[in-house]
Order: sequence, then C-alpha cells, then structure tokens
Amino acid sequence: MRHPFLLKAALLILQSALTRKLSAFVSLVDDDLETLARFHQRRRTFMPGHELVHEGEKRQSAFVLAEGWACSFKILPDGERQIVDFQIPGDFLGLRSILFRTSDHSVQAITRIEASEVLSSDLLNAFADAPRLATAVLWAASRDEAMVVERLCSLGRRSAEERMAHFLLELGARLNILGIGDLTDFACPLTQYHLGDALGLTAVHVNRVLRRLREDNLLTMRNGQVTILDLERLKGLAGFDANYLDQDGPLLR
Amino acid sequence: MRHPFLLKAALLILQSALTRKLSAFVSLVDDDLETLARFHQRRRTFMPGHELVHEGEKRQSAFVLAEGWACSFKILPDGERQIVDFQIPGDFLGLRSILFRTSDHSVQAITRIEASEVLSSDLLNAFADAPRLATAVLWAASRDEAMVVERLCSLGRRSAEERMAHFLLELGARLNILGIGDLTDFACPLTQYHLGDALGLTAVHVNRVLRRLREDNLLTMRNGQVTILDLERLKGLAGFDANYLDQDGPLLR
Repeated sequence: MRHPFLLKAALLILQSALTRKLSAFVSLVDDDLETLARFHQRRRTFMPGHELVHEGEKRQSAFVLAEGWACSFKILPDGERQIVDFQIPGDFLGLRSILFRTSDHSVQAITRIEASEVLSSDLLNAFADAPRLATAVLWAASRDEAMVVERLCSLGRRSAEERMAHFLLELGARLNILGIGDLTDFACPLTQYHLGDALGLTAVHVNRVLRRLREDNLLTMRNGQVTILDLERLKGLAGFDANYLDQDGPLLR
Repeated sequence: MRHPFLLKAALLILQSALTRKLSAFVSLVDDDLETLARFHQRRRTFMPGHELVHEGEKRQSAFVLAEGWACSFKILPDGERQIVDFQIPGDFLGLRSILFRTSDHSVQAITRIEASEVLSSDLLNAFADAPRLATAVLWAASRDEAMVVERLCSLGRRSAEERMAHFLLELGARLNILGIGDLTDFACPLTQYHLGDALGLTAVHVNRVLRRLREDNLLTMRNGQVTILDLERLKGLAGFDANYLDQDGPLLR
C-alpha cells in the first residue's frame, strides 16, 4: 500500500450509513471497512413507488439503502397489504431474498432512493474475508427481527395510541444514530396509509389517533415533520424501552 | 487423522436437528460439521417452565434446542404476554441475546428439553473457521424472522380461523423436515393459552376456533395430537404458501 493515509481518507469519505449502523455493534477495523466498501459498488437510483424486490419471485437481489426511505411488505390473498417495516439509510433491503429461493416479501421505494445492489456472492466473499463482519450482519438482521417482534407486540397487545407512540419513538431513535434526525424532531415522509398498513389501523383511525396525541400535547405530525412534545410521557404511554435497538456504541471491540 | 472413517461415523451419529435444519439451506462439508458439533458441547436438561433466557437482562447465553419444545415471549408493561414463536429441535433459543447487550425477550421450556449452551465466542470462532456456516446461521435467523413476519400478517390481516390454520400448517411443515412429525399429523404439546398468546386470541376464543375448524372437517387437535383432515382446503383458507420456510433442500452447494 503506497498511500495508507490516502486510503484511510478515502475510506472515511466512503463511510456509509451502513458503516455507521454496524459501528454501533462492532469496532470495524480497516479490513472490515474495505470489505464493506465493496457493498457499495453497484449504486443505483430508484424513483418513489419503484418495487426493488418482488414477493414470490426467485433469484432476487438485496440492496443496501444509502439515501431515502423504503418499505417492506406482503400482499395477502385478499389484496390487503401488511407493511412489515420501513427502511432508512444503512438498512438492508431484501436481505432474506438473497438467502431464500423465493422472496417472501416485496420492497418498494417511498421517496427517491439510492441503493447499492448486493449479490449473495458478495455476502459469501465478505464473510470469508472478514468473519467479524458476518457477526455484524447477523446483528443487523437480528435488530431488524427485534423491530418486527415489537410490531407483533403492538398488534397483539397495544392500543392504537400505544402502537403509534411506540412506532414514532422507535423511528426517532433509529434516525438519531444515523445523525439524520433528532430523537424528538425529525422529517418523516410516511403517509397515513403507510402508518395504517404497518400498525393494523385504517387511515381514518390513524388520523384520529394522531389528533388525540396532539390534543394530549404528546406529539405533532404535520407537513412531513414529527415533533415529540413530551418524550418521557410518550415513553410511559408506549412502554417504550430502546434496549431492543441495541445501539449504544460498540459491544464487540 | 488416523481413522477418517470412524470420525465420519461419529459425526453422522452426532448429526443433530440443527445440522438437519441447516442442511436444508447449505450442503455442509466435514469441516462445517466438525465446527457445528462444537455447538453441542455444553448440553443440559431443563424442566418444563424453566426460563433459560430473561428479557431485560445482560450477558445472556443462547442455546441450541436438541429435544423438546420452548417458546420465546415478551411481557408487556401491563403484565400481558405476547408469544413471539415456538422453538422445536434444531432451533436457536435466544440467538439475539448473545448479540445484544440486553436480551429483548425471554425463552421458557414448554416440555422437558435438552439444549446446548452457545456463547458469543463460540459463534465468532465458528464464523472464522467456517464462513459457509456463518451464511447458514444468517439463513436460520432470517427464517425465524420470516416466521415472525407471517405472525405479524396474521395479527394484522387474518381472521382468527385463518391465523390458527396458518399457524398449524407452519408447525406441520417445520416438524416434517426434522422427521419428527408428518405434515398432517403431529404431536403438539401446546395449550390453548400458548396458542392464544401467540395468535392474539383469548383461550375461550381459541377453543371456539378449534371447534369450528373441527366442525368444518378441516382439522382436529386433541390429547396433544394435531390431525389435518383436508390439507388443500386448509391451505386455501389460510392462504398458506410454505415458500417463506425455504426448506426444499440445499440452495448452496
């Protein structure tokens, strides 16, 4: 390596939202960063509404989201949509799709997004070259699962207000570690249809719930901006404990 | 290695439910099998009701279940329980617990179980020695997530009958690849409380749903035995497509 300093500088510039997220779990060394940078070779732009991953189709690609918002969902036989989760920069899109024969879900861009395609061979090669990275990717997948588990608890056991409060607190915490939002004040492009399809509520019900939370001086959501007015009281209402996001700085050094 | 044949025979005898499950995704070679065998060094027996992993506690162990049934769950602030999933032989118990600082869920034995403790160092060492195994463990975690996603769809979008039908079809398919049950006829130690806490129903409602499915000649569940009487009609009712279990023989050779 003739210019280790230049390489390091280039890697820092390349430092992606994925790197920032994985760094919450593991202290990444130069080799890990070089391997991770390979995940960003095939970067593409997609317009809002574009479907990147298709439920029921074989040989799908996965992506790492660099910019914008996406959602993963399933369409049920009667045509209804269940949104599984929303993805923000640093999240994998359709990771299960490259491990499974047939993708069990779809992924759609909500805003204009930039995302890099990851093939299953990229993943296998990365794991062989940097085993710590394998643990970090397993951690990221586990964190995604932990969020789905919280959503399951919401649908099974929480009231409409509690679901909404829990979801928006989670979103604030996720955006916060990426440095693209504040815990209590962040831009959010989701419509009431997105919120309804994720939380098992109708759009009308979503509206009513948001109005009630606003009247209680807990939060406002208007013009694509969420502002949490009373964080502690909202956490109390939702029974929110951020431990399941496991993002308090590297565990593995 | 002086007795390669004997070693191979020993490995075959050691072949665990975990090996059988991972073999549905990847053709495991001898090195992988030797590495996997290390996951079974610290085998222990636990009695029904024993809690192996504790929500909210730090430095938890994970386990690989060898015999019996367990369930993972969360207790909500009001004391209600949401069961996330049931584990059968070959499944990890609390895998997220060794990756997260604080466990986001609890795991309890339903029957008498045998399970082997897995430390995070076991996982890291295994990934370094056998990178294909890292992909297989990521696949297993993704499959667990796919099941939670299906449960989310059930709670968000399926009727009580559809939820129950979907759940019991999944269980039959999972037991079937382990060779410890048939798709349409299997032993099942779950009570109506387990089913209710997993499917967002009361025990009374579970009873009513099972009676209706029996009266429709779709299935019976009695004395710990599930018998599916009309597989195709039940699949149609549930909108069940086993693709998300991704278990049709090794994808990765």
